[in-house]
Amino acid sequence: MAGNSFGTLLKLSTFGESHGEAIGGILEGIPAGLTIDRTVISKAMARRRPGQSRISTQRKERDEVKILSGLFADKTTGTPLAFIIANEDAKSKDYSHLEHNFRPGHADQVYQQKYGHRDFLGGGRSSARETAVRVAAGAIAAQLIPKVDIKAYVSAVGQEDINKSYLALDLSKIDDSITRCPDPTSAQRFEKAILAARKEGDSLGGIISCRISGVPAGWGEPVFDKLHARLGQAMLSINAVKGFEYGSGFSGTRMRGSQHNDTYDEAGNILSNNAGGVLGGISNGEDLYFRVAFKPVATIMQDQRGLNDTGETVTIKGKGRHDPCVVPRAVPIVEAMAALVLADFFLLSKTNKI
Amino acid sequence: MAGNSFGTLLKLSTFGESHGEAIGGILEGIPAGLTIDRTVISKAMARRRPGQSRISTQRKERDEVKILSGLFADKTTGTPLAFIIANEDAKSKDYSHLEHNFRPGHADQVYQQKYGHRDFLGGGRSSARETAVRVAAGAIAAQLIPKVDIKAYVSAVGQEDINKSYLALDLSKIDDSITRCPDPTSAQRFEKAILAARKEGDSLGGIISCRISGVPAGWGEPVFDKLHARLGQAMLSINAVKGFEYGSGFSGTRMRGSQHNDTYDEAGNILSNNAGGVLGGISNGEDLYFRVAFKPVATIMQDQRGLNDTGETVTIKGKGRHDPCVVPRAVPIVEAMAALVLADFFLLSKTNKI
Amino acid sequence: MAGNSFGTLLKLSTFGESHGEAIGGILEGIPAGLTIDRTVISKAMARRRPGQSRISTQRKERDEVKILSGLFADKTTGTPLAFIIANEDAKSKDYSHLEHNFRPGHADQVYQQKYGHRDFLGGGRSSARETAVRVAAGAIAAQLIPKVDIKAYVSAVGQEDINKSYLALDLSKIDDSITRCPDPTSAQRFEKAILAARKEGDSLGGIISCRISGVPAGWGEPVFDKLHARLGQAMLSINAVKGFEYGSGFSGTRMRGSQHNDTYDEAGNILSNNAGGVLGGISNGEDLYFRVAFKPVATIMQDQRGLNDTGETVTIKGKGRHDPCVVPRAVPIVEAMAALVLADFFLLSKTNKI
Amino acid sequence: MAGNSFGTLLKLSTFGESHGEAIGGILEGIPAGLTIDRTVISKAMARRRPGQSRISTQRKERDEVKILSGLFADKTTGTPLAFIIANEDAKSKDYSHLEHNFRPGHADQVYQQKYGHRDFLGGGRSSARETAVRVAAGAIAAQLIPKVDIKAYVSAVGQEDINKSYLALDLSKIDDSITRCPDPTSAQRFEKAILAARKEGDSLGGIISCRISGVPAGWGEPVFDKLHARLGQAMLSINAVKGFEYGSGFSGTRMRGSQHNDTYDEAGNILSNNAGGVLGGISNGEDLYFRVAFKPVATIMQDQRGLNDTGETVTIKGKGRHDPCVVPRAVPIVEAMAALVLADFFLLSKTNKI
Repeated sequence: MAGNSFGTLLKLSTFGESHGEAIGGILEGIPAGLTIDRTVISKAMARRRPGQSRISTQRKERDEVKILSGLFADKTTGTPLAFIIANEDAKSKDYSHLEHNFRPGHADQVYQQKYGHRDFLGGGRSSARETAVRVAAGAIAAQLIPKVDIKAYVSAVGQEDINKSYLALDLSKIDDSITRCPDPTSAQRFEKAILAARKEGDSLGGIISCRISGVPAGWGEPVFDKLHARLGQAMLSINAVKGFEYGSGFSGTRMRGSQHNDTYDEAGNILSNNAGGVLGGISNGEDLYFRVAFKPVATIMQDQRGLNDTGETVTIKGKGRHDPCVVPRAVPIVEAMAALVLADFFLLSKTNKI
Repeated sequence: MAGNSFGTLLKLSTFGESHGEAIGGILEGIPAGLTIDRTVISKAMARRRPGQSRISTQRKERDEVKILSGLFADKTTGTPLAFIIANEDAKSKDYSHLEHNFRPGHADQVYQQKYGHRDFLGGGRSSARETAVRVAAGAIAAQLIPKVDIKAYVSAVGQEDINKSYLALDLSKIDDSITRCPDPTSAQRFEKAILAARKEGDSLGGIISCRISGVPAGWGEPVFDKLHARLGQAMLSINAVKGFEYGSGFSGTRMRGSQHNDTYDEAGNILSNNAGGVLGGISNGEDLYFRVAFKPVATIMQDQRGLNDTGETVTIKGKGRHDPCVVPRAVPIVEAMAALVLADFFLLSKTNKI
Repeated sequence: MAGNSFGTLLKLSTFGESHGEAIGGILEGIPAGLTIDRTVISKAMARRRPGQSRISTQRKERDEVKILSGLFADKTTGTPLAFIIANEDAKSKDYSHLEHNFRPGHADQVYQQKYGHRDFLGGGRSSARETAVRVAAGAIAAQLIPKVDIKAYVSAVGQEDINKSYLALDLSKIDDSITRCPDPTSAQRFEKAILAARKEGDSLGGIISCRISGVPAGWGEPVFDKLHARLGQAMLSINAVKGFEYGSGFSGTRMRGSQHNDTYDEAGNILSNNAGGVLGGISNGEDLYFRVAFKPVATIMQDQRGLNDTGETVTIKGKGRHDPCVVPRAVPIVEAMAALVLADFFLLSKTNKI
Repeated sequence: MAGNSFGTLLKLSTFGESHGEAIGGILEGIPAGLTIDRTVISKAMARRRPGQSRISTQRKERDEVKILSGLFADKTTGTPLAFIIANEDAKSKDYSHLEHNFRPGHADQVYQQKYGHRDFLGGGRSSARETAVRVAAGAIAAQLIPKVDIKAYVSAVGQEDINKSYLALDLSKIDDSITRCPDPTSAQRFEKAILAARKEGDSLGGIISCRISGVPAGWGEPVFDKLHARLGQAMLSINAVKGFEYGSGFSGTRMRGSQHNDTYDEAGNILSNNAGGVLGGISNGEDLYFRVAFKPVATIMQDQRGLNDTGETVTIKGKGRHDPCVVPRAVPIVEAMAALVLADFFLLSKTNKI
């Protein structure tokens, strides 16, 4: 069935609602014999966790990942890795006003229309809480491809932009700021913008850039499962994402072929990376590079006119605990989805040739 | 297996190389009892066909779609629709210089690295010729969802941009120009830019916009198979695509939540469509709207420095017959992929509720 | 990835090892709006539970199914139903002798060969404990197709056979005996045979027959996913199963076409059901009927010569708590797998025709 | 979508109707670099071809397999292998009497009920002609696993049985008789029985046994995709199959555990193969062994009472050209399906361990 699983040989299936007892997933396809470092998982979870800084929601979740199967003496056995994450601070009463009202910019109404019945507590299945499961799974998947280095960072918040290529940044400094921007000046601008928006009861969007090094040539599959097409699906499946581009992206449409093609100097060194590390859907050994657009958070602390379930207009104002800008906490989600895509293509690449 | 199939309940599997005997596909999942109008298929093929105008490649292919199965008395039987398209004007000698050399911006080298062996004639499987199969399949899929109206058009070519919302355009005029731009003035600018680039042996990129009306609320699946995520994968799987955005897209990242949320007037009329017709991955009954970025065509009639299969640099100049700008002919491909995605979600929607 | 999931539109993914913390699964694809009766689940679990009678293993498991997601006010929401079943009475010390020794007739050695590393406690993933998850999922799936009546029963134990067609049996009496044989005399013979085998530290095999009524004509898919082929895979995937036949089965090979074809009397009533309710892989509206062969339980309380992990022969004698004959407890597993197959085909049948 | 595809990493999708222009398939997942010997394919096709002997149908089909893609200089490129087989001797007029009548024992009626519309010429998609595609694909798949030796043979026809274990047979002699029975005396009995049945306008069923050597330990996947469960689905998906058993099969249900477990002599040699080469769904390195039951051919040259599409009884007598017993020609189909299953598990086994 469509929807709740992702991947071919490495497959993540997730379950759970924002305010149910637990969320969790099954990660299937990790080969046997891999020693899993649980601190890698908990570190990734901490980066996505609510309540981590002064610019994020104050919902408190420990987000401890409890692995139920697939490990024996901390090594994978080749059987499915199942895990659950408890929902501890689920204040359901915050949402009682939403039983019959649909929040603008949310999936409330379409779930009602699609299913005729919905779990309205905190968005139910449509809540970004589901992405906690992806982060846990991505942190396991990343351990299968240890030479691959995935670094996502915030490159724009609202009207503010980093205005630098990833090549000009020190990507070891991403976590030095609570906005997860490795450029200190931009980080300050980003934080200031977020705090200003929150003060006004408003919210901001932003852009996450991601550079992945260490991917050998030959990962990705032709035609429909091109590396960038699967990455694109992966990123677009994250809550609030509105766009995806890789390499030269949308700005590449304004170049000429003679500029865009990545050519070589006399010594055989490649002179540019407009390809973004992918040609014809298959990695070429250069850095992968892509950007992901996030819309401003839909829940705002201002009155907005929406509809209720009888089609009348109602005034809705955000309650509950929400981030004014989601991109800092979305950085580990982008990395997790990238890890899932790449680890899957790593496994698929094992059967390319006889 | 990954790569050559697309879709869940409606599934297209394609096969074939640019210069092999034929390309083709199997379309599985069309319900029984649908009368297929073959002229819809041939019209779509004519829009993608090489040699259709003074701005496209002069390779001549009739691109006749021969349906081998799945129809009885022109009605679908519920069994797989298989079809082939012959490769008639495959001038293989045009490509003999590429047996050992890799064209910049092409998949030649990565196929060699991935598979250790490749069909170098015209790009083999990585050729955009494969998209002819998608157009045929999309023209069948579209007949399953007759109320859905899919209109793609060229909204930018190189540095030239249409600078108008789809709401300000008459989408019935898309085919009035050979650039498939419904705005006559922009169409002229686009054509001029393409002809200038060709004269210089160079190539241009561009953007295709697409508006889809008639999609009811409730299509799309939660989490990984969100409607826009599958559309994104579909579009990014088209040759030369570098980016995908829907609704407010990348520019939406610069808006505030209070601007971005689509709210209502007193009478309950929606005031904007930043959502692009999709909330939480599920259609909301408004127009779907998205944009697809295409890089400039990689094959140019200029000398470029590339590599050969022993790692030495070589000078490569395009031969063969190529479009200086691919977007006008890519319009029906975008429409076909959209039709495949939507028809699949239409079928999936039949099992949402008891 | 292959192996741990089953189904197309209705898909069960299971996880868990015999002696891990919990086993469980995700059932995806149940449409929204179905009220789930939890007592149906607990009744099915009780029929499979160890320790239920004097002829079954004395391992004590409450086998309580804890549903974590997918329900809101006891109605399905269309999102994945995840559930776990705790392993409570997992006496791991019973298995320490198996770290380096392979039990004859078990999967110990092949798991070691396949994965290079295994969870040897109670068979790990290869344990029949995994089937508890199937029973829970099947009890949910069955509620989606309430008009379908699935009745499995024990029709042979060791050398003893019921020697009656299902038409001559009162299938409401299956649970009247602890052997789950609806024929009282046969039930007594079966029990006696089981007790005799246990006394000798030996084990028995047997046959489960299953009759399913209420399936309308038209379920099943052509070619590879024929109704009986999927039922066959489902049954053969149950631990200890060695064979599957439906309708006339192996004995039908001895008939002539003139006898085997199910023809009609003058009034149009069908005269036989050698088809077993399936023609060309699609249900024909008659009763489905099939039989499943189970080998004798591999773990016996006798000395047997096996191998250890250095290839030497060792004498192995069963420890732990095991059934002398598995078929009485396998009845609900057969029913569960049948329910999963049929509910999946029910959903698939919704897209057969326009 | 369900039904017309088979396999996970190696996937065959078939298409085509008995009396359409062509049947064919796409085989996806064969790694690049495999040299394909086309004579292996044509030999396999010749063994399945109609008109090959005095005991088979006289329909004449050359059954030439035309490969359209996926090969370059006779080596696989890693892209899909598509092929078609023309329908040359399709005498459609033989079937005009079936437009409104349903043949007993055939899928005519259930296709009508399922799809509301059907191709009634020669059974359309439900015809065993589809299996020609499987034979072609299997002959390619077999070349991927050259050390695996698959030998199927006819072990029973109607009431006649070979009454010998495969260990007592010379499997190099299978094609010495037109019945494909390696035991000369049984072969004579089988042929005599077939000729007698044909003379009476009647038909016979039979059993095909299959022994596969050369499969290393470790192929197959746990739980739902057990090696024997996939083999079972594969065999049960062949037209006219009513049952499948492996190793000790149904007769194993009558043994005790102490007899059934395959134990070892002092020197560590295994003493029996009741397992049939599979434990817990995974190959153990011994011979695979299984048996497949085929019902008697449904089309007979005698009057039978059936139904028409208005529900009235009608007298139907076989026309067209049909085998009186299908098992001799089904031998290569069984081998082909086995090859597809095993080659798929071979590929899957490449990702079991890190």
